Amino acid sequence: MKRKILVVGGVAAGPSAASKAARTSQDVEVTLFEQGDHISYGICELPYYISNAVTNLDKMIIYTPEQLQKEKGVVAKVHHRVERISPVQRKILVRNLETDGVSEYSYDKLILATGTRSKRLGVQGEDGKNVFRVKTLNDGIAIKDFIQQKHPRKAVIIGGGFIGMEMAEAFRALNIETTILHRSHLPMGKLEAETRQMILEELKKHGVNFATVKEIVSFGKDASGEVRNIVTDSGTYAADIVIVAIGFQPNTELAESAGMRLGTMGGIKVDQKQLTNIDNIYAAGDCCEVKNLVDDKPSLLPFATIASKTGRVAGENAAGGNALFKGTVRAVAIRIFDLEVAQVGISSEEAQTSGFDVATEMITDWSRISFMPGSKKLHIIYIIDKRSKRLLGANLIGEEGAALRANTLSAAIRHHLTIDEISQLDLVYTPPYAPLWDPILIAANQAKKRLRELEIK
Amino acid sequence: MKRKILVVGGVAAGPSAASKAARTSQDVEVTLFEQGDHISYGICELPYYISNAVTNLDKMIIYTPEQLQKEKGVVAKVHHRVERISPVQRKILVRNLETDGVSEYSYDKLILATGTRSKRLGVQGEDGKNVFRVKTLNDGIAIKDFIQQKHPRKAVIIGGGFIGMEMAEAFRALNIETTILHRSHLPMGKLEAETRQMILEELKKHGVNFATVKEIVSFGKDASGEVRNIVTDSGTYAADIVIVAIGFQPNTELAESAGMRLGTMGGIKVDQKQLTNIDNIYAAGDCCEVKNLVDDKPSLLPFATIASKTGRVAGENAAGGNALFKGTVRAVAIRIFDLEVAQVGISSEEAQTSGFDVATEMITDWSRISFMPGSKKLHIIYIIDKRSKRLLGANLIGEEGAALRANTLSAAIRHHLTIDEISQLDLVYTPPYAPLWDPILIAANQAKKRLRELEIK
Repeated sequence: MKRKILVVGGVAAGPSAASKAARTSQDVEVTLFEQGDHISYGICELPYYISNAVTNLDKMIIYTPEQLQKEKGVVAKVHHRVERISPVQRKILVRNLETDGVSEYSYDKLILATGTRSKRLGVQGEDGKNVFRVKTLNDGIAIKDFIQQKHPRKAVIIGGGFIGMEMAEAFRALNIETTILHRSHLPMGKLEAETRQMILEELKKHGVNFATVKEIVSFGKDASGEVRNIVTDSGTYAADIVIVAIGFQPNTELAESAGMRLGTMGGIKVDQKQLTNIDNIYAAGDCCEVKNLVDDKPSLLPFATIASKTGRVAGENAAGGNALFKGTVRAVAIRIFDLEVAQVGISSEEAQTSGFDVATEMITDWSRISFMPGSKKLHIIYIIDKRSKRLLGANLIGEEGAALRANTLSAAIRHHLTIDEISQLDLVYTPPYAPLWDPILIAANQAKKRLRELEIK
Repeated sequence: MKRKILVVGGVAAGPSAASKAARTSQDVEVTLFEQGDHISYGICELPYYISNAVTNLDKMIIYTPEQLQKEKGVVAKVHHRVERISPVQRKILVRNLETDGVSEYSYDKLILATGTRSKRLGVQGEDGKNVFRVKTLNDGIAIKDFIQQKHPRKAVIIGGGFIGMEMAEAFRALNIETTILHRSHLPMGKLEAETRQMILEELKKHGVNFATVKEIVSFGKDASGEVRNIVTDSGTYAADIVIVAIGFQPNTELAESAGMRLGTMGGIKVDQKQLTNIDNIYAAGDCCEVKNLVDDKPSLLPFATIASKTGRVAGENAAGGNALFKGTVRAVAIRIFDLEVAQVGISSEEAQTSGFDVATEMITDWSRISFMPGSKKLHIIYIIDKRSKRLLGANLIGEEGAALRANTLSAAIRHHLTIDEISQLDLVYTPPYAPLWDPILIAANQAKKRLRELEIK
């Protein structure tokens, strides 16, 4: 008889784990449960779907349940909520949300990929009909439908992080007046101050209002149940549509109720095999903590890249393989109107908190040979440990060539390269794509000089 | 009295060495000699100057002699040819080509950056008035002037390497009928067969004739001294302008006459400090051999990136510093019409010659999320050592995102990462710039699978 692998959660890590498990062994039978309507879709594409840069909804879905069965040999059951895990009996209790019936399924190995949910403000009116999160495919569909039907003129976005930026771009592309309310005076909290300032200027340049508010007091709803204004400690903001994007928290209740241990950051704690503290139960994706390889600290990094990788590892191991996920270097990029912004590693603030002896260095140079058509300014900030001379993190920002350059620095950070080693890297030079001294090298040479000066003092 | 540092050669490594020496110590006096008209210019930009993508000649010159003196404190003498080195007396004999007078200059440290020269075919007619090399700024000016004055309709390029490709693009941009004559049936010999095939198709798509000729027999000149046709073993080709681009050879005569040792590839042999076998004499740039860090073999890599780096190291050491150039991973990129082509590390053929147990893996994926506007196909070929599972080299080819992705692989190859380690890299995912699984990771996962299959067999 085939060994049974059950997977809980169908967005990113779940399908990745299920597919990899089915591919790893002929001897397993894999079933995936998802409480929502869809499995295996791209969340990061939602703002582009909303802005009409992507028009075909089908493209957003990587695998339908039918495709997952046919192409990967995985049975996927949508509208099925897993409500209880009985680790000793190796059984789960599943509710079919269409029939409301419950069934038990037994497993040899269980993989939890329960993901995160959007944080709530906890204020009155937050359930208004025109208040949206950007978390599921249904959220994206609902926002797009609302815009097409109601033609909102004013959007308020609460939260100046990644999703806030992307939604601001989407709203402006649709010519909707857009205000971001953020608790800090600069957007994008994990980035360096200089980067954040440039982002703020880019937002303003494209007509986005950015307001610092310490507290959201309440949402004022009208008789139809739609929010008309946002009351804050520093003024009231009119809104026809509201996006709440203040972050995510891991869905750990199911895991906790079965006795699974959480880490210090509140995510499920797993080892390098993605195994939890309970036998035969793996966890993967946003619901787990991951080790940050720069400071060796546990962190919550709800990114699809990590979810896919940890999913693969959990799936391979559940099917009898021997894969390891050793940890991650944060590597993220975002387009904010005409700016490419990327971050790798840790911030200067995180580095200080982690006890590094921090130096930072910023340079501005060109994405290509300066006088070639299309060349753009590129800014790089390095965060360096003065003792080891290791690069700990970097910000890259400019109109071209930031995101892919970040990947080179990500590899460097992951493998603990020093600034001196980075200055020796062999980077391509070709007038249409890159200058003789790539900005990565310019920044490294500049940082070397700075470190020497600091030593002399 | 200040220590005297003399630098021979003014294009790439020379100015880099001279500037770095002057910056390293207050206690040195740096003089640079260049026999030509110009110092410190970009050779790689010449095709773009010829095609009018770049129109301002001044932009091509990084430093004039006046700027080098003012900004870097280096005295640069153009039209000065160094004709003899007397290592025991620490003197050089220099001819002023304007006056034809010779003078002696004494040195404490000497840096040779004599570069390369274009290889010659050695056939009759090669000195025709309309036969050009693409090597110096004057070559670029002469080609552009010739095109503007004579309006050639047919160009023949001899040599299907980097310069051949770039000149073909330049000629086609000027609507000149273009034929490349190459000794092999595919262009760009150091690349993998699949890449070369794609390049050939791109050339054809843009109206370039590509012909395989084993031997150039002669150039047929008319009464005015211009070549009208190229006679080969496989036909005669009409030409109004001819480019000979069959490679470069290091200028080592001056070094050899002073007793400097050459390496097995025919370049000046230097240690990690760029010191030659003769006391107080350094060498840098294209005239030197460099260590290829993939197979630890000496090689000739006449690239501006390496020249600049070795120049800096020689300059710093000559001024009393302690810098090392440990070697290089070949990392080159080129635009060929709409294609971005990059190569890092060694080729499968070089890997076989060097005794690696070679496997190759090719994938085709997307530069961004496949359905995002602007996404393009990207092909990657990995060259892997089956024993160590190290990545030895890679080709990247596509309409977008090849060159900067090559940099990440360059860092990986330089630091001896295995395919498994590459598959674990943290690469950015953001719909407008990169897909969830970057092609670098797709290729690594595919290669891992292939290596496992090979092991099982």
